[in-house]
Amino acid sequence: MPIRTPTSEELEQQRSRPDQELSSPQFHVVLLEPEIPNNTGSIGRTCVGLGMKLWLVRPLGFQINDRQLRRAGLDYWPHLCWEAVDDWDMLLKRLRHSTGTPAPRLWFFSKKASHLYTEVAFRPGDAFVFGRESVGLPESLLQEHAENSLRIPTSDRIRSLNVSVAVGVVAFEAARQVSLLSL
Amino acid sequence: MPIRTPTSEELEQQRSRPDQELSSPQFHVVLLEPEIPNNTGSIGRTCVGLGMKLWLVRPLGFQINDRQLRRAGLDYWPHLCWEAVDDWDMLLKRLRHSTGTPAPRLWFFSKKASHLYTEVAFRPGDAFVFGRESVGLPESLLQEHAENSLRIPTSDRIRSLNVSVAVGVVAFEAARQVSLLSL
Repeated sequence: MPIRTPTSEELEQQRSRPDQELSSPQFHVVLLEPEIPNNTGSIGRTCVGLGMKLWLVRPLGFQINDRQLRRAGLDYWPHLCWEAVDDWDMLLKRLRHSTGTPAPRLWFFSKKASHLYTEVAFRPGDAFVFGRESVGLPESLLQEHAENSLRIPTSDRIRSLNVSVAVGVVAFEAARQVSLLSL
Repeated sequence: MPIRTPTSEELEQQRSRPDQELSSPQFHVVLLEPEIPNNTGSIGRTCVGLGMKLWLVRPLGFQINDRQLRRAGLDYWPHLCWEAVDDWDMLLKRLRHSTGTPAPRLWFFSKKASHLYTEVAFRPGDAFVFGRESVGLPESLLQEHAENSLRIPTSDRIRSLNVSVAVGVVAFEAARQVSLLSL
């Protein structure tokens, strides 16, 4: 009897099951073309921990049912509210639908940004956008959204933080600001 | 000609080279018996980014020159101020020496702690102690230091954050409090 191989649908699921949907996620995390499954797994864990929705914009450097992603996300991935989209336009469309607002507020994270992430007053419903591990967010996106681009300051001795650490730092600062942590 | 194997000294270095020493690290991160080299590598990267010193208390789940640790820490490990010690008593002794204070202030992180990490006023010189990935800090240590034990609040759906995310959240909150980020 031949071993059954996963269907392409199983390999590339679009989103979490309906019972994992959050009625109103406090925040949204967007990973633009993430490359490393371990990082996405760790970020998924943070998202479950804070009730945030995770968005993945293709192409991804891994398959969503990848063994490493599940391993990195431990047993948390099934609890995660997530959605994968094919491109930036689809992200905006689906984010508008998910947040119920015509213009969800997006924040773009880059070492090249001039504003610090601690200077901003985050609001529930905000979305935090992070780029690829190797190159960060595209220059064009940062220029277009210069006023909404934020920097996590570090010594010049590192190129950047690990992306899962960066997401954690921003997500917990936002949660602290809106008093989510004291609930 | 036989291939030379690394000496035990090379395999188990004690600390960073003198030129990586920080004259006065803003904060100290202590990993008690860390198990996963990728996490320690990522934490080392955060430490370099914020000028913190990293302490590793043996036994470690990896060798300090482990390929994975270097890979996870990318090219940052050589810039890291770090020290490995054999046990808790040696940690306290070396931490007193490194900070120049008879009683460096230690904070212990656990999901079982009652105080939130955002309720504390951190001070430069403070040390943040994190336990093993699998089981966290020993109960005895948490009971002995109940007043200095802190919790990073999350949903019950995750057992804990990834330890490198937890270190990042705490380190950047401390840095924010002491205005290190706006420098």
